[in-house]
Amino acid sequence: MRDDYLLSGELAKSLYERAKALPIYDYHCHLNPKEIWEDKPFETIGEIWLGGDHYKWRMMRGAGIEENRITGDASFKEKFLAYASALPLAVGNPLAVWSHAELKTCFGIDRPLNPDTAEEIWEEANAYIKKTNMSPRKLIESFGVEFIGTTDDPCDSLEYHEKLAADPTFSVKVTPSFRTDNLMTLRRDGYRDYIARLSECSGCAIDSFPSLMEAAEKRILSFKERGCVFTDVGITDFPNRIASEKEATETLSAVLAGKSVTDEAYLGFLGSVFVALGKLYRKHGLVMQLHLGAYRNPNSALFASLGGDCGCDCIGKAVDGGDLIRILDAIDQDGGLPETILYSLNPSMNDQLASIAGSFRGVKLGAAWWFNDHTFGIRQVLNSLSSIGYLGGFYGMLTDSRSFLSYPRHDYFRRILCSFVADLYESGQVADASALPLLIEKICYQNIKERIGESR
Amino acid sequence: MRDDYLLSGELAKSLYERAKALPIYDYHCHLNPKEIWEDKPFETIGEIWLGGDHYKWRMMRGAGIEENRITGDASFKEKFLAYASALPLAVGNPLAVWSHAELKTCFGIDRPLNPDTAEEIWEEANAYIKKTNMSPRKLIESFGVEFIGTTDDPCDSLEYHEKLAADPTFSVKVTPSFRTDNLMTLRRDGYRDYIARLSECSGCAIDSFPSLMEAAEKRILSFKERGCVFTDVGITDFPNRIASEKEATETLSAVLAGKSVTDEAYLGFLGSVFVALGKLYRKHGLVMQLHLGAYRNPNSALFASLGGDCGCDCIGKAVDGGDLIRILDAIDQDGGLPETILYSLNPSMNDQLASIAGSFRGVKLGAAWWFNDHTFGIRQVLNSLSSIGYLGGFYGMLTDSRSFLSYPRHDYFRRILCSFVADLYESGQVADASALPLLIEKICYQNIKERIGESR
Amino acid sequence: MRDDYLLSGELAKSLYERAKALPIYDYHCHLNPKEIWEDKPFETIGEIWLGGDHYKWRMMRGAGIEENRITGDASFKEKFLAYASALPLAVGNPLAVWSHAELKTCFGIDRPLNPDTAEEIWEEANAYIKKTNMSPRKLIESFGVEFIGTTDDPCDSLEYHEKLAADPTFSVKVTPSFRTDNLMTLRRDGYRDYIARLSECSGCAIDSFPSLMEAAEKRILSFKERGCVFTDVGITDFPNRIASEKEATETLSAVLAGKSVTDEAYLGFLGSVFVALGKLYRKHGLVMQLHLGAYRNPNSALFASLGGDCGCDCIGKAVDGGDLIRILDAIDQDGGLPETILYSLNPSMNDQLASIAGSFRGVKLGAAWWFNDHTFGIRQVLNSLSSIGYLGGFYGMLTDSRSFLSYPRHDYFRRILCSFVADLYESGQVADASALPLLIEKICYQNIKERIGESR
Repeated sequence: MRDDYLLSGELAKSLYERAKALPIYDYHCHLNPKEIWEDKPFETIGEIWLGGDHYKWRMMRGAGIEENRITGDASFKEKFLAYASALPLAVGNPLAVWSHAELKTCFGIDRPLNPDTAEEIWEEANAYIKKTNMSPRKLIESFGVEFIGTTDDPCDSLEYHEKLAADPTFSVKVTPSFRTDNLMTLRRDGYRDYIARLSECSGCAIDSFPSLMEAAEKRILSFKERGCVFTDVGITDFPNRIASEKEATETLSAVLAGKSVTDEAYLGFLGSVFVALGKLYRKHGLVMQLHLGAYRNPNSALFASLGGDCGCDCIGKAVDGGDLIRILDAIDQDGGLPETILYSLNPSMNDQLASIAGSFRGVKLGAAWWFNDHTFGIRQVLNSLSSIGYLGGFYGMLTDSRSFLSYPRHDYFRRILCSFVADLYESGQVADASALPLLIEKICYQNIKERIGESR
Repeated sequence: MRDDYLLSGELAKSLYERAKALPIYDYHCHLNPKEIWEDKPFETIGEIWLGGDHYKWRMMRGAGIEENRITGDASFKEKFLAYASALPLAVGNPLAVWSHAELKTCFGIDRPLNPDTAEEIWEEANAYIKKTNMSPRKLIESFGVEFIGTTDDPCDSLEYHEKLAADPTFSVKVTPSFRTDNLMTLRRDGYRDYIARLSECSGCAIDSFPSLMEAAEKRILSFKERGCVFTDVGITDFPNRIASEKEATETLSAVLAGKSVTDEAYLGFLGSVFVALGKLYRKHGLVMQLHLGAYRNPNSALFASLGGDCGCDCIGKAVDGGDLIRILDAIDQDGGLPETILYSLNPSMNDQLASIAGSFRGVKLGAAWWFNDHTFGIRQVLNSLSSIGYLGGFYGMLTDSRSFLSYPRHDYFRRILCSFVADLYESGQVADASALPLLIEKICYQNIKERIGESR
Repeated sequence: MRDDYLLSGELAKSLYERAKALPIYDYHCHLNPKEIWEDKPFETIGEIWLGGDHYKWRMMRGAGIEENRITGDASFKEKFLAYASALPLAVGNPLAVWSHAELKTCFGIDRPLNPDTAEEIWEEANAYIKKTNMSPRKLIESFGVEFIGTTDDPCDSLEYHEKLAADPTFSVKVTPSFRTDNLMTLRRDGYRDYIARLSECSGCAIDSFPSLMEAAEKRILSFKERGCVFTDVGITDFPNRIASEKEATETLSAVLAGKSVTDEAYLGFLGSVFVALGKLYRKHGLVMQLHLGAYRNPNSALFASLGGDCGCDCIGKAVDGGDLIRILDAIDQDGGLPETILYSLNPSMNDQLASIAGSFRGVKLGAAWWFNDHTFGIRQVLNSLSSIGYLGGFYGMLTDSRSFLSYPRHDYFRRILCSFVADLYESGQVADASALPLLIEKICYQNIKERIGESR
């Protein structure tokens, strides 16, 4: 990789000089706080790269590698060699850039990974892991990370967040985010057990919609004690209506009594939860993140054998803008919205979402999500956000990742951002170039830092 | 702003040399003919910029400025300073280009507007306004405008169009366009009063669908006397069916009797009106403009306090192509379509609309509309139009604006167009470069001039 | 046309040097095998260009040329002159590039076609046709075509495929593809007659869903004997459900008894056919091509006078991803999917389709289809495919054409592909440049050649 990869010219390079040194606020990711706490040293690059990274699994399937060398019994070395065999022709896939950026930044290896080099890179990377006793915390600290927002179920004890906060040897702030998918999807298996657990950990007997929200608020308060700033939801369905409190209670009661509920009842219940939670978030100063348009587990056979998060999720259909407006407006009319970030997995919604965001105070378009986290997708989001919204208010990058190695994606984003802004200048669309360094700094660091600072 | 901003190279510059001097036909805008007639001199740049420009209000909300300094009691100077504070970080927003282009072209001020310069630019611009006695007509004439197509309700008396036409001191042709939103949306408050007014001004007692169309035709004839060439509609809903004349009469009668009507009846009525008006437009040689995919007033709280057009509209969902085809085909089968221009606020429809346009004679894709009126959005439309349609027939730019200062947007478009065409040439996709100057001239001026000329 | 048209720089040129000489596998087109067999010499360029090319007809309508000189009684020379008059302003339309590439490659004429040159080019091209005795086979061979996959109805006798295979003087492999539109669309006129013919040619009495599938399998076996590797479907509707075998039989029986069936029954039947055919394709090792999102014959008046394929089809609405997943998953759960290629006419689906493809083993995104077959559309597909999928597995270009002159479109694609890949390298996104020549070779030739080779 060239040092100036993705940088389009002199101005981009100069902006990037300032951007690259900024600390990282990874305000939305799926890192496991227990693993950060335990800080167990890694064994091999195979384990780190292919133990759980569904981006890589997916790409390997596309390259025709048999499942055994992806998620099966093959050794991590065999899996690593298989990945190396697929990588040279994964041109244009962000994995091709990320993998080489990770090799260079985390392992000091600056040459292409391919079938010819795979054996020696395997040895070299593993030797480096051993020599440096590489572990989660060391990786996190090496990237200048100052803040990590994990993704946590309302029932989570937050034990490891507490331990991490109390540990003077680790200065990175690791805070929970309140992710309500499990609380909302009442037609899934195990929902009754879930509600029993939520009743227990919140101390609220849940037998109605108001008591469900009371339990949620109790947990929000516990999350806030652990530094929570962000909430999140990323379910497949988006509600097209809002049930009354009475109807929502009836739907909940039916499910708790073991009965099935109609689509209409389900969607109405979802609508009620979205609105009621939105009001709680506003009351408690939390940021509401909405992840829209994901389709989970389309491949029944692989889901049966591997479970979720196996690299078989996909882009779902665009949420109906009118449905989203109904929810936002209902919260807004009842006292204003919490600060809200909209993410769409379906990029055909980008412009519409940017325009909806601009119609409500405190609502923003978020970073390019998941399947859109590549140069083209990031530029699309920057285009929608800057043309239709207000680029200066953007919260910038997050990894959304389960991997301790994914921080080079912040660097990747910063390069694309600097080039995007520099290109606007080069084409004569920026009258006031002196504002650009500040713009970059705000997007990469200051905006989100200030928001989180406010919450303390 | 550099003189060659947005021009990608030597060919683009040379094409632009020809384009920039061409007169302006602003065939679709929302200028107020009364204000043109009265020609009241302006007072301050604050009034001109922030008295009613919902583009700017929206951006200021995105920048976090409190409502008082946007639409509230704050003075225009305070609002101007607030706008100046937000502008430097609105990078990529067309307002950043437009504002500086307006400062340069209309006020002779060629330096960045930002918090440091805001006070002195405020003074300088206002002094310029006073010195030049700046007024609507002066601005219009200074830009070489030859034609203005306003947007007018069928009940409008067209008094000011008449006065303007009779005034020998003002050579710009200002003609009304027949905008039928109010006539169509029969479930809104005040529809009965509206029909009473339409009955009165048309001299037709409206008690059935045929008599409604008779009244519409009467008004069309009055509009044509005032030079009308264009019609328009931009309602949120698009019909998925076409009611029979009998059913449409029943629906209309129900509403006039104070009853409510179902979605199905409403959409069927809309379908009937679209088809019947389309036939009238063909009969009278008018151009049918369809503005598709807008969502109006999503923010109930701001709508309650500020009313419509306050910067809170947004992109609606893509119209179902099959629904649009149903309407176009029904008109076409009954004698052919009027010349038709399709605009979509949801850019995910661009390619589909270009392909539908190509399936019917005389139907064209229109200019990038509203939230799409920026470099990226304009290039998207040019891509769809040129790849799937016929670029040589394009009617080019219109401002769609309520502001007398928005004519630099024609210049903005011409630069993007020249660069788009030049880039096609540079990449070797144009065999016949000698046709390019003519192409630019046709799109910027001749096509629309000839169309309007024909109508007289 | 410059020799290096569409090539963005030195690396693109060097990759193209390798790409341009590769043979052509045109694995999906609409060439008529009878015409290839008969090999009748052409008469004029007017006949070749304007006898049936609905791309050109459509563009001419957009340019305002009257129907008589498009599909009417005018002579081919008049039509050719009309086309030449429209071409110079069709800037950005792929026809502008294709037409000049065809003139240069097929007729040795390397100057712009426009009204000034049209007469002499007419004479020169026709003289060339006469001199070279230009015919279908000569054209095919001159382009280095090794494989042609035609598109054939299950009832087709495949007589001409058999004759071509037996002819030692023609080395190009011409194989049928199993296109099931007529078998599936049971509500169209003539379906009963169609089933009678299918019964006859398959030797299976069709009176139930299982017997329909039995007939289909018989025909698949006959197609395989003629070298068939590909199947195809491109109907307007996509099913949102899968009927049981019993229900599908009832629906089929109702239609065969002359009764009409509901939308629900129709869509359920379609779902059953999609799934059952998918299983047959897997069993017999055929590739399943799904062409999604076309809207056929929107213009009733032109359909009545000219029939289908007259240049009035258009982009339909995006297929619901969940519906597509339902079909793919149902086949997959019952033993795995056949190799599958997804094509979308609505480009707003590209990213979603790429993500769905990546969720199932052996499913790929296909080449930019029809209205998307231009530089911008091809780049969009390459972006989706490379960012979200695996570029190295791409099957590359096909013409989808009815014209013997359309092979320069492979060259057009190769140029765009080489520039796309080179641009990724120039921006620093390719760590391993040595893999690029292989990548180009695989996409242009080897991937599809190997797939077809396997099938023999």
